[in-house]
Amino acid sequence: MATINDIGVAAAINIVTALAFLLAFAIFRIQPVNDRVYFPKWYLKGLRSSSIQTGGFGSKFINLDFRSYIRFLNWMPEALKMPEPELVDHAGLDSVVYLRIYLLGLKIFFPIACVAFTAMVPVNWTNKGLDRLRHYNISFSDIDKLSLSNIPNGSPRFWVHLCMAYAITFWTCFILKREYQNIALMRLQFLANDQRRPNQFTVLVRNIPSDPHESICELVEHFFKVNHPDHYLTFQAVHDATKLSELVLTRKQMQNLLDYNINKHMRNQSNRPVIKMGFLGCCGEEADGIKYYTSVVEGLTREIAEEKQRLRTGTKSIVPAAFVSFKTRWGAAVCAQTQQTRNPTEWVTEWAAEPRDIYYDNLALPYVDLKIRRLIVGVAYFFLTFFFMIPIAFVQSLANIEGIEKAFPFLKPLIEVKFLKSIIQGFLPGIALKIFLLFLPRILMQMSKFEGFVSTSSLERRAATRFYMFQFINVFLGSIVTGTAFQQLNSFLNQSANDIPKTIGVSIPMKATFFITYIMVDGWAGVAGEILRLKPLIIYHLKNSFLVRTEKDREEATDPGTIGFNTGEPQIQLYFLLGLVYAAVSPILLPFILVFFGLAFVVYRHQVINVYNQKYESAGKFWPDVHRRVVIALVVSQLLLMGLLSTKHASKSTPLLLVLPLLTIGFHKHCKNRYQPAFVTYPLQEAMIKDTLDRIREPNFNLKAFLRDAYAHPEFRVGEDPEPEEKLESDMSPPELVATKRGSWRNTPLTSKQSCRDIP
Amino acid sequence: MATINDIGVAAAINIVTALAFLLAFAIFRIQPVNDRVYFPKWYLKGLRSSSIQTGGFGSKFINLDFRSYIRFLNWMPEALKMPEPELVDHAGLDSVVYLRIYLLGLKIFFPIACVAFTAMVPVNWTNKGLDRLRHYNISFSDIDKLSLSNIPNGSPRFWVHLCMAYAITFWTCFILKREYQNIALMRLQFLANDQRRPNQFTVLVRNIPSDPHESICELVEHFFKVNHPDHYLTFQAVHDATKLSELVLTRKQMQNLLDYNINKHMRNQSNRPVIKMGFLGCCGEEADGIKYYTSVVEGLTREIAEEKQRLRTGTKSIVPAAFVSFKTRWGAAVCAQTQQTRNPTEWVTEWAAEPRDIYYDNLALPYVDLKIRRLIVGVAYFFLTFFFMIPIAFVQSLANIEGIEKAFPFLKPLIEVKFLKSIIQGFLPGIALKIFLLFLPRILMQMSKFEGFVSTSSLERRAATRFYMFQFINVFLGSIVTGTAFQQLNSFLNQSANDIPKTIGVSIPMKATFFITYIMVDGWAGVAGEILRLKPLIIYHLKNSFLVRTEKDREEATDPGTIGFNTGEPQIQLYFLLGLVYAAVSPILLPFILVFFGLAFVVYRHQVINVYNQKYESAGKFWPDVHRRVVIALVVSQLLLMGLLSTKHASKSTPLLLVLPLLTIGFHKHCKNRYQPAFVTYPLQEAMIKDTLDRIREPNFNLKAFLRDAYAHPEFRVGEDPEPEEKLESDMSPPELVATKRGSWRNTPLTSKQSCRDIP
Repeated sequence: MATINDIGVAAAINIVTALAFLLAFAIFRIQPVNDRVYFPKWYLKGLRSSSIQTGGFGSKFINLDFRSYIRFLNWMPEALKMPEPELVDHAGLDSVVYLRIYLLGLKIFFPIACVAFTAMVPVNWTNKGLDRLRHYNISFSDIDKLSLSNIPNGSPRFWVHLCMAYAITFWTCFILKREYQNIALMRLQFLANDQRRPNQFTVLVRNIPSDPHESICELVEHFFKVNHPDHYLTFQAVHDATKLSELVLTRKQMQNLLDYNINKHMRNQSNRPVIKMGFLGCCGEEADGIKYYTSVVEGLTREIAEEKQRLRTGTKSIVPAAFVSFKTRWGAAVCAQTQQTRNPTEWVTEWAAEPRDIYYDNLALPYVDLKIRRLIVGVAYFFLTFFFMIPIAFVQSLANIEGIEKAFPFLKPLIEVKFLKSIIQGFLPGIALKIFLLFLPRILMQMSKFEGFVSTSSLERRAATRFYMFQFINVFLGSIVTGTAFQQLNSFLNQSANDIPKTIGVSIPMKATFFITYIMVDGWAGVAGEILRLKPLIIYHLKNSFLVRTEKDREEATDPGTIGFNTGEPQIQLYFLLGLVYAAVSPILLPFILVFFGLAFVVYRHQVINVYNQKYESAGKFWPDVHRRVVIALVVSQLLLMGLLSTKHASKSTPLLLVLPLLTIGFHKHCKNRYQPAFVTYPLQEAMIKDTLDRIREPNFNLKAFLRDAYAHPEFRVGEDPEPEEKLESDMSPPELVATKRGSWRNTPLTSKQSCRDIP
Repeated sequence: MATINDIGVAAAINIVTALAFLLAFAIFRIQPVNDRVYFPKWYLKGLRSSSIQTGGFGSKFINLDFRSYIRFLNWMPEALKMPEPELVDHAGLDSVVYLRIYLLGLKIFFPIACVAFTAMVPVNWTNKGLDRLRHYNISFSDIDKLSLSNIPNGSPRFWVHLCMAYAITFWTCFILKREYQNIALMRLQFLANDQRRPNQFTVLVRNIPSDPHESICELVEHFFKVNHPDHYLTFQAVHDATKLSELVLTRKQMQNLLDYNINKHMRNQSNRPVIKMGFLGCCGEEADGIKYYTSVVEGLTREIAEEKQRLRTGTKSIVPAAFVSFKTRWGAAVCAQTQQTRNPTEWVTEWAAEPRDIYYDNLALPYVDLKIRRLIVGVAYFFLTFFFMIPIAFVQSLANIEGIEKAFPFLKPLIEVKFLKSIIQGFLPGIALKIFLLFLPRILMQMSKFEGFVSTSSLERRAATRFYMFQFINVFLGSIVTGTAFQQLNSFLNQSANDIPKTIGVSIPMKATFFITYIMVDGWAGVAGEILRLKPLIIYHLKNSFLVRTEKDREEATDPGTIGFNTGEPQIQLYFLLGLVYAAVSPILLPFILVFFGLAFVVYRHQVINVYNQKYESAGKFWPDVHRRVVIALVVSQLLLMGLLSTKHASKSTPLLLVLPLLTIGFHKHCKNRYQPAFVTYPLQEAMIKDTLDRIREPNFNLKAFLRDAYAHPEFRVGEDPEPEEKLESDMSPPELVATKRGSWRNTPLTSKQSCRDIP
């Protein structure tokens, strides 16, 4: 077991690393040449067009104003300066709500840490429970003396821990409820103040049944004219533009190669760049690079135009889904919240996400496919979670000094050096896990895509849920209980419901030191690394050297990135889990978690203000997930404490502790009923108020023109000239109700061309 | 353990009892004097006004046509004759769907029984697994030789049981799905063909927030005029009429006493009836009965009129709930399915049930109260379920011969008489349980009422769920695993998840004989008793002798009763559970269950045609509950078989059996997504079709007049003259939108009197 010295060394290393990152950032960010890497948000907003120069030779690239180096840490107060409402305008509600997760951590854990250190640490410290272990030659560190392990079995002092558990529960629930309330209010306020947006008027309709007598366009038009006669306005068909997307992507790659060749030629005007036509450009015939790529790009441009034309005129590529728009927000809210036909799997309506949030590839999936895909992904995820563990267990067995010495005996003299030993013990397990987990989010994101979600935001939310569950099982449980996840599952199935919390609970205090190093590596150094943006920095400078010709190219070379909800949020949740589990057991963990939350809050606030460019705005729709996961962490912490105390012969406390999970679950149900609808539905009253205001302010607004191309496939918009205006104003006389021969109520049929003209 | 002889005796007793009941019924039903007891439905429908007479002396009371006694069993084919669509018209969809539960049982178990007896019984019988037990002096009966217990451990013959489990699962799911589909279709068809009803246009709004500036009536009017401007028609306030209800009830009792006294006087004209005014009419001053009760009834009538007047004019008794009606079904469907305001706990809308289905007492409960009540009921139900068991265990220990002999040694010679022993062993445990369970439904119904449901149908559904869970835990598990339910719970908590099915599974084959007797007592004799209607028969004749004066009184004296979903359905579900659990273990149970389903189907079909008068029509809304419970029974049967087989050293089959519950749960989810919405929401397309047809057929229908008193409190309607017509036609000019001083969008204020005039 790691001693307090090991922790000290690890802390020192991590603090040094984190400080080095922060220092590097402080220097890099004031270099004009890096301006686009560290302040891309301002460029994207058009508030900054070129880097600030301090004058003097070379000042275009390097900051020569030495005074600014003295103030190198002033980004921190600056990051905290911008008030929240302004930040909502600047970066959107998603970012602000995301930052509030860190604040939530501070709000929950700061008071708990204060109470724990004043009340619990003395209670734990002034015992001799662990001293008895010396007789059995079991080593323990001073850190363990701060924990619950130090209290002898059956001691009345456990009442303090019991009270602490109650205090933690009530405080956490109180803060959670207030936060849920605030964020629901912020969301509703945000939606109420939001300007006119296409998604407010639009509903996504999926699983349109096929009809031998009518095309999809006609079907949609008729259906909504009949069933929403007073409110229906127009619709946009969805095209299967897979081929077009591929072509556009290829053209972009070819354009990059062309740019590279042109740049090469410009630098060295004497010889034109030559490329080889064979395998990977390494062999084969030689050709003029610029000429070759120019012709390829031109060919692709032609092909793209043809493909667009084909999609625009043909109806074969239309998939059985459509974006249906209504005259009022009220009409859209009604359509999104109601069932349309007898068969609930047909004409499925839901709020359309923002146009930029839509994930077009999944719109066409039929109902049965979705179910099958969900099943497949469920099974795949199960195997991923329970068999991915093997490599982690391998790495962790290496991180054990004795294990390494056994495996590589020749390393023994090296490892026995005290300093190196501390590094290995304090550093390795954490970093191995972290590297390992870096690859996971992509796999999970692909799974979510396969599963068929139709918006990027929901993809990310789903991937985050999966990532959290993965971390819970493999990082948290996997580190506490030895053995692979599958072995654990098997042993849990063979244990009674009472024994599982005991098995886990009893090993919790022993793992405190491991999690402290994990928090330092993953949390502290990770956050400091985030602000340095090493990867975007390198890529930007590479692109800048080889590909950039115009200012517009330079703009494209900057990748501001996003918050990355699917990776960031589960990470924070792990800290919530650790904090809540250890709060009543080994409070020594809490300061480390508090430092993480504080540092991360400042860093991410800075990044949100200066760097990240969110790809979509879901108005904080992810908060119910955040809330739910903190509640789960709370319940887990209660169950584990119950297990731990019952092994400590403090079983009198079990019934009192059993009440806590029940209360917490009740609390969660209440919050869900009370606040979750604000994140799912759009209340009719809100819609009506906004409609009424709009009608008064702009009675003659042409909504149809406003909505016309809003939901066109993004590839349609690439390099597209705006459509001539006369198409917009095409008459759309109110349809007359007629009964068609097939007995159902249909409108006067439109020609296929007429009804599909909404495609740009 | 009961031998085959015991079963034979029990079967004989029960068959004789059942036959006696049926015979008594056959004779009683053709007596004209009982006509109103056995054919009340026809009287209520106005298709029969006096009993059929065969002529001759006394033929008004007793049937003297002896030929009709020969045909005494012809009610059976008659009950089956009426085709289903006609039955829907005659008795409503609820009854027809309820009957289909019995049919579902026949459809599921008849093929299973055939396969089990041809394939499994020979496999079980031709073994000597149980013979080994003779060495250990453990007794077993021939019935056990038919069961899975007879197969030696680890025998390859268990593959037959495995295949059987798969066959049962697939067949049950197939039938369940087809039935769900059919019933969803029947429901939609029924709703589509249904005549114009107030509930189609009406939404129940609850939790109307209080407003210091407006009365509830004004608030409702304004809110819906603003938020559903094109569709809102009118509303009806809900009054707290508790006092009125009490007065009406008292008047009814007094009226009964008055009638009794008048009848007494008419029979014996010489002396007027005298009553005593003291305690319970046993002591105190004497008075003239007729005069006294006449004055009391008159006084009450006056009080009732005053109370009605008070409710009608005052606004204090109006509770924060209202029935809001719309111009179209579309408008009502929209309002019922959408969220109205930011706060999802205010202005909660839902489909209004039929007026006669509404449970008025619960309409006023605020949101927080509902939650607290639910919690209280949950805790109460937990204690009821887990501690109610003690008496049952006591009775069952008595039913054990050895137990009785120990407790009452002097009874030993009596008990040892072979015939008596058989009776005690075969009969007692079942009947004790049954009597015990008779009291339960009322308690559960009271619990549901306290919990705050607003319609009788939902009250009954909830009570049925609770009753089923109670039976599952206490009758099913309680009979299989010895010990009280609480001891079981405790031992389950201390067992591993793997061991629980083993513990229960291993005792299943041994309990087959007990459940056979239970089926005979509870099922066979119970159903035969149901058709005899002994209790209503006695009550009718008592009332007829003492209270009835006019033909109308006689009508009121008949209590046709209802199907009683809250008691009947859980009982059937217990048979589904037993059938599915024993199908692969001891198929000998299946014929008994089949007889029950067949007999019950005929009996209840007869009762539905001739007797029951449903209090409400929910259009088969309970089917999702029925479906879910059969699925639960299926999963339980699979888990128990898995546990049983694993104790039989057939663990190779476990993974194959593990697939079944997963498949079944997947199947349930699919069915839920696909068919459940048909039972919850009203699709907009359906609403629109019906609206359009209505508009064409009756363009000038006065909907407002039609809806006016539909949802008035039932006590308002008692002895009420119709309101003068001019009130109906009061102008309701379209409101203008104005912003009130308080900044929200409100309509022009109405006077309190105007907006509350909808109250009759």
